[in-house]
Amino acid sequence: MENLHRIEKDFLGEKEIEIDKYYGVQTLRAKENFDITTLGISIFPNFIISLAKVKKACALTNHELGDLTDTQKNAIVQACDRIIAGEFHDQFIVDPIQGGAGTSTNMNANEVIANIALEILGHPKSSYDIIHPNNHINMSQSTNDVYPTAIKITLYELIFKLQDSLKFLRDCFHDKAVEFKDILKMGRTQLQDAVPMTLGQEFKTYSTMIDDDIFRLTTAQNTLKAVNLGATAIGTGINTKPEYQELVIKHLRMVTGTEYYKANDMIEATQDTGSFVQISGRFKSIAIKVSKICNDLRLLSSGPRAGLNEINLPPLQPGSSIMPGKVNPVMPEVVNQVAFDVIGADVTISLASEHGQLQLNVFEPIIAFRLFISINMMRRAFESLGEKCIKGITANPEVCMNNVLNSATLVTCLNPILGYEKSSAIAKEALKTGKRVYDILLEQKLFTQEELEELLQPRNMVHNYDKI
Amino acid sequence: MENLHRIEKDFLGEKEIEIDKYYGVQTLRAKENFDITTLGISIFPNFIISLAKVKKACALTNHELGDLTDTQKNAIVQACDRIIAGEFHDQFIVDPIQGGAGTSTNMNANEVIANIALEILGHPKSSYDIIHPNNHINMSQSTNDVYPTAIKITLYELIFKLQDSLKFLRDCFHDKAVEFKDILKMGRTQLQDAVPMTLGQEFKTYSTMIDDDIFRLTTAQNTLKAVNLGATAIGTGINTKPEYQELVIKHLRMVTGTEYYKANDMIEATQDTGSFVQISGRFKSIAIKVSKICNDLRLLSSGPRAGLNEINLPPLQPGSSIMPGKVNPVMPEVVNQVAFDVIGADVTISLASEHGQLQLNVFEPIIAFRLFISINMMRRAFESLGEKCIKGITANPEVCMNNVLNSATLVTCLNPILGYEKSSAIAKEALKTGKRVYDILLEQKLFTQEELEELLQPRNMVHNYDKI
Amino acid sequence: MENLHRIEKDFLGEKEIEIDKYYGVQTLRAKENFDITTLGISIFPNFIISLAKVKKACALTNHELGDLTDTQKNAIVQACDRIIAGEFHDQFIVDPIQGGAGTSTNMNANEVIANIALEILGHPKSSYDIIHPNNHINMSQSTNDVYPTAIKITLYELIFKLQDSLKFLRDCFHDKAVEFKDILKMGRTQLQDAVPMTLGQEFKTYSTMIDDDIFRLTTAQNTLKAVNLGATAIGTGINTKPEYQELVIKHLRMVTGTEYYKANDMIEATQDTGSFVQISGRFKSIAIKVSKICNDLRLLSSGPRAGLNEINLPPLQPGSSIMPGKVNPVMPEVVNQVAFDVIGADVTISLASEHGQLQLNVFEPIIAFRLFISINMMRRAFESLGEKCIKGITANPEVCMNNVLNSATLVTCLNPILGYEKSSAIAKEALKTGKRVYDILLEQKLFTQEELEELLQPRNMVHNYDKI
Amino acid sequence: MENLHRIEKDFLGEKEIEIDKYYGVQTLRAKENFDITTLGISIFPNFIISLAKVKKACALTNHELGDLTDTQKNAIVQACDRIIAGEFHDQFIVDPIQGGAGTSTNMNANEVIANIALEILGHPKSSYDIIHPNNHINMSQSTNDVYPTAIKITLYELIFKLQDSLKFLRDCFHDKAVEFKDILKMGRTQLQDAVPMTLGQEFKTYSTMIDDDIFRLTTAQNTLKAVNLGATAIGTGINTKPEYQELVIKHLRMVTGTEYYKANDMIEATQDTGSFVQISGRFKSIAIKVSKICNDLRLLSSGPRAGLNEINLPPLQPGSSIMPGKVNPVMPEVVNQVAFDVIGADVTISLASEHGQLQLNVFEPIIAFRLFISINMMRRAFESLGEKCIKGITANPEVCMNNVLNSATLVTCLNPILGYEKSSAIAKEALKTGKRVYDILLEQKLFTQEELEELLQPRNMVHNYDKI
Repeated sequence: MENLHRIEKDFLGEKEIEIDKYYGVQTLRAKENFDITTLGISIFPNFIISLAKVKKACALTNHELGDLTDTQKNAIVQACDRIIAGEFHDQFIVDPIQGGAGTSTNMNANEVIANIALEILGHPKSSYDIIHPNNHINMSQSTNDVYPTAIKITLYELIFKLQDSLKFLRDCFHDKAVEFKDILKMGRTQLQDAVPMTLGQEFKTYSTMIDDDIFRLTTAQNTLKAVNLGATAIGTGINTKPEYQELVIKHLRMVTGTEYYKANDMIEATQDTGSFVQISGRFKSIAIKVSKICNDLRLLSSGPRAGLNEINLPPLQPGSSIMPGKVNPVMPEVVNQVAFDVIGADVTISLASEHGQLQLNVFEPIIAFRLFISINMMRRAFESLGEKCIKGITANPEVCMNNVLNSATLVTCLNPILGYEKSSAIAKEALKTGKRVYDILLEQKLFTQEELEELLQPRNMVHNYDKI
Repeated sequence: MENLHRIEKDFLGEKEIEIDKYYGVQTLRAKENFDITTLGISIFPNFIISLAKVKKACALTNHELGDLTDTQKNAIVQACDRIIAGEFHDQFIVDPIQGGAGTSTNMNANEVIANIALEILGHPKSSYDIIHPNNHINMSQSTNDVYPTAIKITLYELIFKLQDSLKFLRDCFHDKAVEFKDILKMGRTQLQDAVPMTLGQEFKTYSTMIDDDIFRLTTAQNTLKAVNLGATAIGTGINTKPEYQELVIKHLRMVTGTEYYKANDMIEATQDTGSFVQISGRFKSIAIKVSKICNDLRLLSSGPRAGLNEINLPPLQPGSSIMPGKVNPVMPEVVNQVAFDVIGADVTISLASEHGQLQLNVFEPIIAFRLFISINMMRRAFESLGEKCIKGITANPEVCMNNVLNSATLVTCLNPILGYEKSSAIAKEALKTGKRVYDILLEQKLFTQEELEELLQPRNMVHNYDKI
Repeated sequence: MENLHRIEKDFLGEKEIEIDKYYGVQTLRAKENFDITTLGISIFPNFIISLAKVKKACALTNHELGDLTDTQKNAIVQACDRIIAGEFHDQFIVDPIQGGAGTSTNMNANEVIANIALEILGHPKSSYDIIHPNNHINMSQSTNDVYPTAIKITLYELIFKLQDSLKFLRDCFHDKAVEFKDILKMGRTQLQDAVPMTLGQEFKTYSTMIDDDIFRLTTAQNTLKAVNLGATAIGTGINTKPEYQELVIKHLRMVTGTEYYKANDMIEATQDTGSFVQISGRFKSIAIKVSKICNDLRLLSSGPRAGLNEINLPPLQPGSSIMPGKVNPVMPEVVNQVAFDVIGADVTISLASEHGQLQLNVFEPIIAFRLFISINMMRRAFESLGEKCIKGITANPEVCMNNVLNSATLVTCLNPILGYEKSSAIAKEALKTGKRVYDILLEQKLFTQEELEELLQPRNMVHNYDKI
Repeated sequence: MENLHRIEKDFLGEKEIEIDKYYGVQTLRAKENFDITTLGISIFPNFIISLAKVKKACALTNHELGDLTDTQKNAIVQACDRIIAGEFHDQFIVDPIQGGAGTSTNMNANEVIANIALEILGHPKSSYDIIHPNNHINMSQSTNDVYPTAIKITLYELIFKLQDSLKFLRDCFHDKAVEFKDILKMGRTQLQDAVPMTLGQEFKTYSTMIDDDIFRLTTAQNTLKAVNLGATAIGTGINTKPEYQELVIKHLRMVTGTEYYKANDMIEATQDTGSFVQISGRFKSIAIKVSKICNDLRLLSSGPRAGLNEINLPPLQPGSSIMPGKVNPVMPEVVNQVAFDVIGADVTISLASEHGQLQLNVFEPIIAFRLFISINMMRRAFESLGEKCIKGITANPEVCMNNVLNSATLVTCLNPILGYEKSSAIAKEALKTGKRVYDILLEQKLFTQEELEELLQPRNMVHNYDKI
């Protein structure tokens, strides 16, 4: 049926577009050219929204400068608002991994907004003489300023969500630190028995580790506020009016509610991807820490008989298709894998950043793609880890205590009381006979049971045991 | 409505499952536990098929050993065949990134196959007393042998497809090598003018580079043939009959048509992921080469006025939202990005492999995930690169030739005829005056134009110019 | 000769030590055990000095707490001061890559300081009943607090040197930006001709890029101020007096002149290596940026005839053993390689950090080793790059200008004057005939030569051309 | 004193060279230009020898083709032989990390060989009219063929040494596998108790893992045999006689004793660094495996009281400066760090390879540098690990056995005898009461002690227990 398609053309020729689609010829070409992930940019809804916010700010600016009519402006702004509200995301179909430095993404937005605006004004799609994707929607803009600005806005907002998941995880660990504050256990260095500590201190450490990175994320997040909107093609601001740069930032702030500002050196800001590298470095740093924590959790819960068995992770699913009753630390295991992926992504992003050439880094699409995926995966993984695993951890206090009583290092703590000579003799006897140091101390009547119990109170064994 | 759900239970309790779903309680738990990518394993259809092939081979073996009845075996085999044919892929819903070393994937397969088999036999779903996901479908198996075996089969088969795309790309380059064999140009080292070569030789190089890696992929692919099926939990073959290991391989060969064989050391084969690391290394090697080639293509086609401009890439889409007529090398650009991702994935896979502990590497899911994604992205990217870019490349022979005539290194080639003294003098004059060496040679009547034309024939300028 | 050796023993037995060596049995064992790099820790003199500063601060603290006599304290402090002054570095012989979490390095320091102190007091070496490596030099300390603290002090101070080299490099680029501010050239995106800019703006960008990272380094550097000195074995402060932790920081500040402070959570600070990961991330970020700049420099100076040839790098050495007169961009090339090494080192450091287990990260030696090497190589490379390359760069203004006059994008700039229709027609004619746009404009008498010259003034072609 | 220096000049001017040095002006310039590592290429003696072998083969070829006199040839060959014998290595002073694609290394060799040859002939140094570094030593050569060929020869020979260290390590593990073949222990998956195996099988696995990679190294090593000697500047063989390429390979084979051959596509072979990437991939693969093994060793020897404590690593040095008697797994710890460095180096090498441009990869120096360091560190580390650690490992059979007797999974093994119902009941009781399964079986008189002892023989618990 003839009218199921409309025709658009560009300098490469004509293409048929399904009548109900809001995108146009350039989007369709890009869709055909880039068949890499089989996914569309709509897998990142926050990014679509950010694009619409940028376009809205630009339209308001162009209108204020007298370059768009009231009618045009109103239609464009309304179109952007509807996208921001979540409509039309399915029209953003270009592959997130694409050549052209994001031009296809930008044109996808330009075409969709133009056609929504036309519809709002009662015109058929493709009536570009009235509202044109390039001349009106992309007015005073270039992919090279719009695209990185939209990435920055997206990251800026997603980082809050990541921080929420980190705060939740930190709090889960902290709650356990309080819960376990009276459980004495062996501290280990190099996996060898070292000196006593509490299980509370062990979990407090995890909460401190994460807390540090929440704060550091904010520092990194703030560098995202410097945007190059108004830089157009290479940062020289070609095709913009002199007042445009300051004005568009003002509108961007109003549209987003965030204090974005004009980068100091717009040419540098257009070609450099240093802020993305910095964000990726932060993500990697978080991944490294959480992976280390998950390694520890798997180690401390190893067993139940042939492992350390100091803590129990809550069972989440049958652990084996062959060994009945086996329960595995599946949640730390999956978080480890997310961490490995984030660490690998940092290499990808480093490569992409380093390959920028002259006035542009054409590899921003893969940078954005990997950053968005890393942040989304981490957020989901950390929420799951806290909710399904950390919250349900229980301790085996008797196992923990027994390791202390067993260990030769108990005598280290008694050194000040017994003297070095006597301590060493007891340690040697324990190792030779296999007896517990605790029992030898009683046998030799060096302490009464009551004295030992008192000595072994956590508050007497470690500094600041309750500073949690 | 009561009968819209059925109830299944495991040791963690009961769960409601929608009546039309073929998976069971363990799949559902895993789906809830692992919410990382928002995707299911069905994004890798080849992997679903490989799982079904393994299950089929195991059922045939268990039947031959008298542990499954004819009825059970027939139903299971038929269920597997239907999955292999592409039915039911939507029932494979667990997240590809998961804890538990793939147990959830294995149980997803076990449950779906059981319920299809039950349906075939006319029983309602969940009638596991008749056909049980663990007791029958997973009989004589463990996730720890089934899962890596299915990954290996998948990779083995996908590598053929990757090789096809590489062969196509190699041939595209080779065709251009033949087409460009008479175009003389400057060879460059360190981006500085070096000595003449032909554009054909330049493209021939790309075809050779790729050809080498096609061959090397086969070597790597063959290491995938050693599987640990029959190893069960840790490689000791617990819960299998003595004849099982040899027999199941026999059936696997018949089901797949590939000569898989039993790994030499089944305990080692169960915990080591070395063959995956090796495959990833190959992928990285290919990515590095193709990325280098794409860098070159972008460089050689730079311009049109302010760049090297020796070749033209076919225009695929308008290149700029602001600069009319600009055409960008979008296809090499997107392939570069795929390469960066594959290189990053190699780090992820290395980390995952190195983190294996004792008798198992629990991080195989992320290894499989990244390998499958890398291979799929590369295959699609290489096909697009060949079809949409390389095939349409045209040369600018006059630009190429002019660089030769311009260059001081032309005198290097005339050294044997003119002598070192005279050559140096001409080179110096060219640099001082800005004149072309070619013109100086004519001015000084050192050669006639005919002589120079003959000297500058590609066949006289480079060895083996037609050995393409 | 009997007295050429002295004998020391530990619990593994006796060893002979050359009489003139200041180190003892544990250093010697470590030297034999770890034969990895064939180098000793003395390749990092700043680190030896930092170790001595830590030991000095501890001795002063132990003396203030009444645990060392005046005599002991004076001798130890004097020994440390002599090491700080550069004496005895050759006595620090253990391999920088070592097992044991730095214990061998710490014991190397303990033994050397003890024997220097003994010498100062007139005792023969090894008279450890008077001054003992463990009991006196290492009093109230553990490797696990001394070693990371010394690493942090070293990095803190080396970062100033790195910043100096970056500031120098930034200034070199800035000087060139000023020098080249009136040279108009084509800006390039995706290696394709884009719009005009000045060469000054191009160099200004490099100076801005580097400037950003100088500032960010300071942020990272400040996180190094939080040290765990006083934490001893696992952070619980075992074997220290309650006042020790605050006091030792006070002395450390006085000895170093830097405001180090006690980490908030000493157990966390003992096991976490997050601050090193952060520093490494910064180094990687710098490496990425400088590598990108070097890529650009090599590209812009490519030619002289068959390349972009917009700038000339100063010749530093003959460039070819076969092509006379060839000069290569050797300085950017070597800096690229340093950058690649720093980027790889970041992966090594990430791996090492992620592998920390429970109360300690035993892999700090490789972290320190790679960080020290990265910082030293970068510092030397950046100084060389600035001094030997950037300072001597000259421009080819006529090549730059010719690209502008040649390029179809010149008409983009004339759009506002000529109108879109006329502009397009001229662009097409230029592409068809190969003529320069400039010449067509004159031919068609659209402008006089004077008008064009005026239009093409940098100040008229780019915004803020003199804002450098 | 006037005659302490001699003067050499190149096109950049004159330089004074100390009279006793064999290198010349270009070496000295390079030494000044590249101050990156503070080291010279002589840290890789095998590489110096390989360079001399290549130069010798070229001299023999040039003589055979009539381009060197007998006198010249004899002097040059004798000079090369003396370098091969180990003389003059201290004359190879240029930094291994250098710009210029190795030109400085090649010129360092050319100058040193020229001056040794001159000395042999009784001429003063720098009498280059008689024997010239470029005209005679470098005749028919370019850095671009000589340098990669020398790297390949070096790697080829060093790989044998690496294989020797791997074979030794494999044998150490294998000896332990035999020694521990009767020790029954719990196998673990996901660090959770799984099913029984022998400690012998565990160590056998390590030997198998390593054995696989010894074989795979040979495959990679063989790709190094394809060299581009004769390719000169870009692979077109400019400045060589037609017979040169075949002849020089013949001489190279004779000089080295290895069957090197001419690469199939000399232009490709000159620019591609794929074989180095492949070698690096192999090194990374080995590093990953050995690191995993070291992680296991540290885990299995954890304790002695609060860890797994199944094996004991031999004590090598006191483990703590604060905790008396602590012994740490220092040898696995240092090997882990070497592995992390090799994995990071692979990223560096990947970056360097990917950055090759057009007819040359100018980043070969960092590739060679990191490969040489990786191979040397691994060789030393593996020898130390085998000799100082693996050989001295002892087992704690009673700990191992007790884990089996303790574990609920023992009932899994008795399933076939007791039936699933009874087995489950016993498992539950064990978990509830904390009793050993072994003791419950005796209490309930399900087995006599003799029967249980027999059942628990390794040969009855695992398949192929003696197949080691």
